[in-house]
Amino acid sequence: MTTLSSAQHTLTGAMYIGARRVVGQRAAIHAINPATAETLQPAYGGGDSADVDHACQLASQAFASYRRTGLAQRAAFLEQIAEQILALGDELIVRAMAETGLPRARLEGERGRTVGQLRLFAEVVRAGDWLDARIDPALPERTPLPRPDLRQRQVPLGPVAVFGASNFPLAFSVAGGDTASALAAGAPVVVKAHSAHPGTAELVAHGIRQAVRLCDLHEGVFSMLYGSGQEVGTALVAHPAIKAVGFTGSRAGGTALMRVAANRKEPIPVYAEMSSINPVFLLPAALQQRADSLAQGFAGSLLMGAGQFCTNPGLVVAIEGDGLQRFIDGAQQALASSSPATMLTPGICRAYSEGVSTLAAQPQVDTLARGLEATGPNQCQAALFSTTAEAFLAEPDVLGMEVFGSSSLLIKCRDEAEMLRIAEHLEGQLTATLQLQQGADTALLSALLDILELKAGRILANGYPTGVEVCHAMVHGGPFPATSDSRTTSVGSAAIKRFLRPVCYQDIPDTALPEALQQANPLALRRMVNGGY
Amino acid sequence: MTTLSSAQHTLTGAMYIGARRVVGQRAAIHAINPATAETLQPAYGGGDSADVDHACQLASQAFASYRRTGLAQRAAFLEQIAEQILALGDELIVRAMAETGLPRARLEGERGRTVGQLRLFAEVVRAGDWLDARIDPALPERTPLPRPDLRQRQVPLGPVAVFGASNFPLAFSVAGGDTASALAAGAPVVVKAHSAHPGTAELVAHGIRQAVRLCDLHEGVFSMLYGSGQEVGTALVAHPAIKAVGFTGSRAGGTALMRVAANRKEPIPVYAEMSSINPVFLLPAALQQRADSLAQGFAGSLLMGAGQFCTNPGLVVAIEGDGLQRFIDGAQQALASSSPATMLTPGICRAYSEGVSTLAAQPQVDTLARGLEATGPNQCQAALFSTTAEAFLAEPDVLGMEVFGSSSLLIKCRDEAEMLRIAEHLEGQLTATLQLQQGADTALLSALLDILELKAGRILANGYPTGVEVCHAMVHGGPFPATSDSRTTSVGSAAIKRFLRPVCYQDIPDTALPEALQQANPLALRRMVNGGY
Repeated sequence: MTTLSSAQHTLTGAMYIGARRVVGQRAAIHAINPATAETLQPAYGGGDSADVDHACQLASQAFASYRRTGLAQRAAFLEQIAEQILALGDELIVRAMAETGLPRARLEGERGRTVGQLRLFAEVVRAGDWLDARIDPALPERTPLPRPDLRQRQVPLGPVAVFGASNFPLAFSVAGGDTASALAAGAPVVVKAHSAHPGTAELVAHGIRQAVRLCDLHEGVFSMLYGSGQEVGTALVAHPAIKAVGFTGSRAGGTALMRVAANRKEPIPVYAEMSSINPVFLLPAALQQRADSLAQGFAGSLLMGAGQFCTNPGLVVAIEGDGLQRFIDGAQQALASSSPATMLTPGICRAYSEGVSTLAAQPQVDTLARGLEATGPNQCQAALFSTTAEAFLAEPDVLGMEVFGSSSLLIKCRDEAEMLRIAEHLEGQLTATLQLQQGADTALLSALLDILELKAGRILANGYPTGVEVCHAMVHGGPFPATSDSRTTSVGSAAIKRFLRPVCYQDIPDTALPEALQQANPLALRRMVNGGY
Repeated sequence: MTTLSSAQHTLTGAMYIGARRVVGQRAAIHAINPATAETLQPAYGGGDSADVDHACQLASQAFASYRRTGLAQRAAFLEQIAEQILALGDELIVRAMAETGLPRARLEGERGRTVGQLRLFAEVVRAGDWLDARIDPALPERTPLPRPDLRQRQVPLGPVAVFGASNFPLAFSVAGGDTASALAAGAPVVVKAHSAHPGTAELVAHGIRQAVRLCDLHEGVFSMLYGSGQEVGTALVAHPAIKAVGFTGSRAGGTALMRVAANRKEPIPVYAEMSSINPVFLLPAALQQRADSLAQGFAGSLLMGAGQFCTNPGLVVAIEGDGLQRFIDGAQQALASSSPATMLTPGICRAYSEGVSTLAAQPQVDTLARGLEATGPNQCQAALFSTTAEAFLAEPDVLGMEVFGSSSLLIKCRDEAEMLRIAEHLEGQLTATLQLQQGADTALLSALLDILELKAGRILANGYPTGVEVCHAMVHGGPFPATSDSRTTSVGSAAIKRFLRPVCYQDIPDTALPEALQQANPLALRRMVNGGY
């Protein structure tokens, strides 16, 4: 444990621009307790483009030393951040509960995930495989021309801008996966805090700042700003010192940042995780044999956390028949008795209600079930709709639109061919789920896999897409509009690759080479030599 | 060897849309022999957007089967293309000579490089490391939640559009590195042939088409179109079936394609290799000890192939003094007696003359040397200019502009600090070169490396940047504007990564998994398990 006690911290409403606390001069942001509609103190003054510039300048200065930190030192920093987040104690959980309406158990779990993620990246940094060291030794005798000595390693792109998500105030926010993987890569981070949980953000930023100080790093390694997406967000992505962007949020927000990044004098990569309806395919044998438990499992996944997950199952695809009718009966029953749940923000709740109304108003859409009616503010009343494959294929943009919350659309297909056609017409997805019986429906399964591996980042069987493991094989990504860059993942150890680029060193004297490439291999890395290991 | 004889092929002027030969109906393109200004037959009718659509539809259809070809089958296809290119015999060399003005030895060498590159990617495909197979086995006993079984592999993005370069009619053109790496990744390719060497393109396309046929692949695996960048190029990048773009050419051309790709409904990655002036830093001790040989080496690199290389040394940075004066004397002498050389096209020659005139007209620029005057058409008359560090820093956009051809600008610095400042103010580069003496100037070398590894894809010592080895550690890439995507390389085995994306399989039955991920490891791949090997 560390110097920071678990004593109560006083929230100040100030940003972190390196070591400096600065109260923004733009319109103040207040968190709202969505469960009570109560406005929370303190006020968080919004930053402006001058604040952005200061933070980015500091990040740029910090980059010179931070990118050269040793593997052990950088790993220790990530672990120190984890310690400092734990040291914030219950205050972090209490504030996050107030700002998000999420229950204690969920937030404690999310804190564990956040801390675990930082520690995983510490391990990844220490192991050094991410440096992808490659050596093609000189061939002085080769004819007609000798080959020089060529060595490659990865270096960080430069300072990274991170935009936290509303729905994971810890694991996808200030010290979430984007920040952890960028810091692991050797990139300073400038966070734009999500306006829905500024107090949670301030506490976590305090923890990171303490870790920066304790590890004796340049103050510019981490800054955090409040403010509008329009002003602060745009200025951040447009700033010449920023070399990559991590974002989790809406399709409109993500594509706006993509445009800013593409129109810079020097375009930069944007890793935006945006929009996904996460289709669930109920294969015939599974539906036949366990329609009831499928209905229960599906309803549980849909209702969890008011459906406020990027991987919420927003689409169910099945073939008409007895089995499907039993599934519908079970799902209707489960949803009709489901209690309303507090959503993250008034804006999200409003968008949910509008999305549900839009779907309900479509002529080809039937409402199969609604949850219990709500009394308090910002409540999500679950919804299950159905339509035909034909109707969906005629209006994929309207019916395939993401409704963020516990809403799902069941597509009834006449046969396997229609089910495959639905799969083919889907946009890019984070996940696709297959409910199947081992050994049954093998031809359909094979055909679906062929289509879905081109549509989704992750394909799962006999589970539900909510729940994203932080590990080495995870892909939390997928073709547009699920993300802006299907070549990457924002969860798991491979997320570090997003902030790296290769550099080749040709005939550079051994003593001047980075340690990763020196002949004696002082970092004891696994290195590719002549294409092999 | 194969069914194709080395007998003379009759050039037809037709495109390849899959197996079909189609004469484009738009304005005809004629190759011009730049050495004689003679127009070459036949005419190549330009394609239109309907042709683009046909080729892309075919590519999309072919993708379904081509991406599932086995490693051995796909490798054999790449090797068959190499065989077919060799089987074109001397006709290919003769036509390429006529279309480009490049000498026989260079083109024979380039053919060897092209064939070698295809064979390297065949080896890469067979080895299978590019599948990056990762397995995190299930942990059913884990608390609080069990871990599912998670497996990751890479899949191809989809059909790729390739734009060949004028300056490497074989190695960076129809069957060049972009095509070879895309085909290796499992992506069908639609090439827009460069209008400067349509006959060379037709011959190579014929070879690829033969290989497609002999390997019994779907005809849509390869198409090639002629036409304007404006119509055919734009339509190709905008086509929904195309999922990535490989381009080698000008900054204007590359950034235009980047804009088209970013404005699609589904944005796609563009790998454009564009603009680089490849700074050469002459460190004090090296200049002191071997100014004469440095001058000879530099002049040789600058004059080679009329300077028509992406890695041409267009900038020399050195500190004033005796040594530099000797270098200048030597370089002046070498250049002043240099014969003019034929450039690739009238347009390139015109742009060269304009670029040289623009530089010569700058008030702070002195002309140090010009090559011998030319008499024939399209001749490159070498040029060496000098300026001060101060002047360069005041006008980096004008003085740092790429002049494609044998032109270079020497920047005279007063001291090491000025040299470092020049390095800091450079745009992104493909290469940066250091001429140094082992053990001398170590502080300066270290400071330069720190700056240059953020500026360039490849840093080399005591050589010249022309000459790009095709191997595993090569990086032919670099920050914008050297390329559009600094995370990648367009030369070497890592180029395959540009056309791949990861997919995660969670709890998928073993028999339904792709072979790369099945428990028994039937492909005998090196796989990451629980983060280790």
